[in-house]
Amino acid sequence: MESDDVCTTDSCDEDRLQKPNIIILLADDMGYGDLSCYGHSSQEWNEIDRMAAEGLRFTQFYSADSMCSPARAGLLTGRLPIRSGIVGGRRVFVDYDKGGLPKEEMTLAEMLKSAGYLTGMTGKWHLGINAVNNSDGTHLPHMHGFDVVGLNLPMSVLWTCDTSGYFQPDGPENSQCFLYRGQKLIQQPIQFQTLTEDMVTDWKSFLDQSQSGKTRQPFFYYFSFPHVHTALWAAKDFKGKSQRGLYGDNLNEMAWAVGQVLDSLKAANIDKETLVLFMSDHGPHKEMCIYGGSTGGLKGGKSNSFEGGFRIPFIAWMPGTVPAGAASPAILSTLDLIPTFHKWILQRNLPENITFDGIDVIDYLLGKRLDPALNISQSRPLFFYCNQHLMAVRYRQYKIHFKTSPYFSDSQVKDDCVEGVPKGDWYVSQLCLLKDLVEQNPPLVYDLHADPREMYSLDVIGNTELHLMVKEVERIVESHKNGIAEVPNQLGKYDPKLIPCCNYPKCECNDK
Amino acid sequence: MESDDVCTTDSCDEDRLQKPNIIILLADDMGYGDLSCYGHSSQEWNEIDRMAAEGLRFTQFYSADSMCSPARAGLLTGRLPIRSGIVGGRRVFVDYDKGGLPKEEMTLAEMLKSAGYLTGMTGKWHLGINAVNNSDGTHLPHMHGFDVVGLNLPMSVLWTCDTSGYFQPDGPENSQCFLYRGQKLIQQPIQFQTLTEDMVTDWKSFLDQSQSGKTRQPFFYYFSFPHVHTALWAAKDFKGKSQRGLYGDNLNEMAWAVGQVLDSLKAANIDKETLVLFMSDHGPHKEMCIYGGSTGGLKGGKSNSFEGGFRIPFIAWMPGTVPAGAASPAILSTLDLIPTFHKWILQRNLPENITFDGIDVIDYLLGKRLDPALNISQSRPLFFYCNQHLMAVRYRQYKIHFKTSPYFSDSQVKDDCVEGVPKGDWYVSQLCLLKDLVEQNPPLVYDLHADPREMYSLDVIGNTELHLMVKEVERIVESHKNGIAEVPNQLGKYDPKLIPCCNYPKCECNDK
Repeated sequence: MESDDVCTTDSCDEDRLQKPNIIILLADDMGYGDLSCYGHSSQEWNEIDRMAAEGLRFTQFYSADSMCSPARAGLLTGRLPIRSGIVGGRRVFVDYDKGGLPKEEMTLAEMLKSAGYLTGMTGKWHLGINAVNNSDGTHLPHMHGFDVVGLNLPMSVLWTCDTSGYFQPDGPENSQCFLYRGQKLIQQPIQFQTLTEDMVTDWKSFLDQSQSGKTRQPFFYYFSFPHVHTALWAAKDFKGKSQRGLYGDNLNEMAWAVGQVLDSLKAANIDKETLVLFMSDHGPHKEMCIYGGSTGGLKGGKSNSFEGGFRIPFIAWMPGTVPAGAASPAILSTLDLIPTFHKWILQRNLPENITFDGIDVIDYLLGKRLDPALNISQSRPLFFYCNQHLMAVRYRQYKIHFKTSPYFSDSQVKDDCVEGVPKGDWYVSQLCLLKDLVEQNPPLVYDLHADPREMYSLDVIGNTELHLMVKEVERIVESHKNGIAEVPNQLGKYDPKLIPCCNYPKCECNDK
Repeated sequence: MESDDVCTTDSCDEDRLQKPNIIILLADDMGYGDLSCYGHSSQEWNEIDRMAAEGLRFTQFYSADSMCSPARAGLLTGRLPIRSGIVGGRRVFVDYDKGGLPKEEMTLAEMLKSAGYLTGMTGKWHLGINAVNNSDGTHLPHMHGFDVVGLNLPMSVLWTCDTSGYFQPDGPENSQCFLYRGQKLIQQPIQFQTLTEDMVTDWKSFLDQSQSGKTRQPFFYYFSFPHVHTALWAAKDFKGKSQRGLYGDNLNEMAWAVGQVLDSLKAANIDKETLVLFMSDHGPHKEMCIYGGSTGGLKGGKSNSFEGGFRIPFIAWMPGTVPAGAASPAILSTLDLIPTFHKWILQRNLPENITFDGIDVIDYLLGKRLDPALNISQSRPLFFYCNQHLMAVRYRQYKIHFKTSPYFSDSQVKDDCVEGVPKGDWYVSQLCLLKDLVEQNPPLVYDLHADPREMYSLDVIGNTELHLMVKEVERIVESHKNGIAEVPNQLGKYDPKLIPCCNYPKCECNDK
């Protein structure tokens, strides 16, 4: 169907900009410095870089957390994971966790559904599976506002799911490695060879469905890539092609899929009415050595609260609306998406009975304000948690660390990355137990504009202005902490009976 | 004059592409990671980034050296500085050095002059001043093929020339801080306030001159910025405007000038027949802390032979000829420019009685070959010197370090960059004396594609393939060393009588 059939009047044009289609393209474990357009020197210039050339690249965009499950909870709810209880346990959901994203949390999908959107997703979920037995699916995406759920990886592509022989010479652990379609377990262990292609097929069939009605129905699609989490893999067309190696192959395969999404929007003539956002969920898994991503020189990485853990690549694309080829210095967070879309699309204020942690940043997101001096969003604080502990605050150009957790430093590489090969699948700040944290008193303060690598801590005692700023942030933190309601921890309530298994006792099947 | 008056036939079009105008825009001490388009997270997106968006950005481009004078000698002669004798002393020319770029070296300006080009320059020279007394000007640019020399800083903008009070509270050292116009000393100490603007005026007057003839005369212009060497400064329009601080102000001021050059080419309607190359002379001066640049995470910096010292940002721009907006992985060197232009413009092979260290890379420079698999230039070695010592070789994806010199590491920051303020104007490898070098036996080998940060050295004893590769490189090195003729050192023959002084004994004047 031609788009003219769907909407031809001026009011329709207005409708398209008021109710644009929204696509989130989410990478897994990709670092701030992993793309050519973010400065990586051996990753090939690919379709994601083309998206940046046609759109707007953000240089100070933050995730809601530095680990997968809480970061995704924050993205989808607009609330810090501490509010929804995505804390405790191993910081991420495992296959025998009873918890999940609580049903009472309003997700981006539910919110947009309430505004008349068709909603869909493919790919990684990682916000819980079962609550009662091994197939109740209490926490799966269809329970959270997604009308159409294609392929669904309820967890990550784990190291133990490797089928290439790189990471798991004895083959995958079936119990941890499974693929769903919608609510149904269809493959155990998960096979990678055509996974990316199949996810693109999911997207295209959703797109066809969304465009098949007589009247225009806007859509929201959540394309959640399992790339570039370890175990890495690459399909035939990509394997051995990146000069960077397997990590680059896997990343370029994801970039191909991104190109497919953008091209299909152009082919359907709806590119100008679709806002596409590409981002990572948090920083790179540096402990993976050459199989981990790059922060582009930022300190730390996945699992801790330095910039390398929380700052993410983020690209906005909407031809004709978002300017092409530039970079925005706006200080934004994935927590801002819910408030922004709520205001833009539902055209009313956020519900007052729920605490949200972001703000409406539409002018920044669409690149209408690129001058940092105009950046109102700089004056609001951003909170950095490690599990249930508030670690640091970004406030204006400053990062104020009240606590720090260990990070995988360059000096550990000698022992833990011999010839670039990782020792194992671990994170320095895997649990973030209080005993592993260092209290910083006075707090460690960095000026991230002058010193983005957090190298030169500032004297907050001798400098009156800084001292007052820290006092102000301490008041902000106190008030923030008082506003955190106690909720049950969703992570760490384990029951081995919940582990998905298609076919006892082998747990082996392939109905794809 | 409209360009149509100059050239209207088809043969003229051919002439324009065979004898394009060439402009080199050279930054001083700017690091690989200092621009937004190379991943810097707080440097504003500026006119140099726009140049990259309209042109081609290179990710593996190398300088001929990691310090100013030898790097510039290499760029202008196409020969490693060891061949022209730009070794010894303090690795760079000081104001009482008797030596300079030897007259018998053929420069890019001389070569292009011989092909009928009008040649000009403005800005930093740093290849010698006097040989006999304080005003003979033996080594100045007019002796090396530059027809039109505008403002000329025979040395760097030194720390001691600071007029801002940041670095030199008692004011500049007149003896080290002077500005020439052509061969004439016109200002002592040098004033910065309108310097950038005045250099742009130089360029515009050269452009007018080049376009005023009845027939087209192609031109070569060397716009050699004193930015972003310390002492940093910023004119009124830029001061305090960059969120990154003074370094960012200074960089953005240079970017403004870059924008002026590109805009003036468009206004003169000669942008399509002009190849503009923007680059840095080598890596950043990290010992300057927040007043030094960024390698974007690459190891080391100015003065040593890790990637941070030699890898430079490099952008090629020629609308209609060089593709727009992408990045090229070609492994190139500033040493390639002479061989490339010689072949392209003079259309014959290089003179056989001179040893050149680069190769013709026209297809890569113009972005006709972007696929790394096609990269023939990967198979030739690049040599990394520290003063007269051969330190390392880049060969295919590998970097092979035979010797290493100290580099300013992150762990030194605690003592040497308290709150980001530098201790002084120094380099860890300032002299590169043999006693300061560490012999690496077996050599340290890194795979720069998998490991651009030189983190994970490879086992060259246990791995047969790598072992053979190293043996091959050792043979290449031996042959290379045998081909180095002994020439007099130009650096380190000092005579205090040579110090320029416009007005004894105060050495103070302003005839600008």
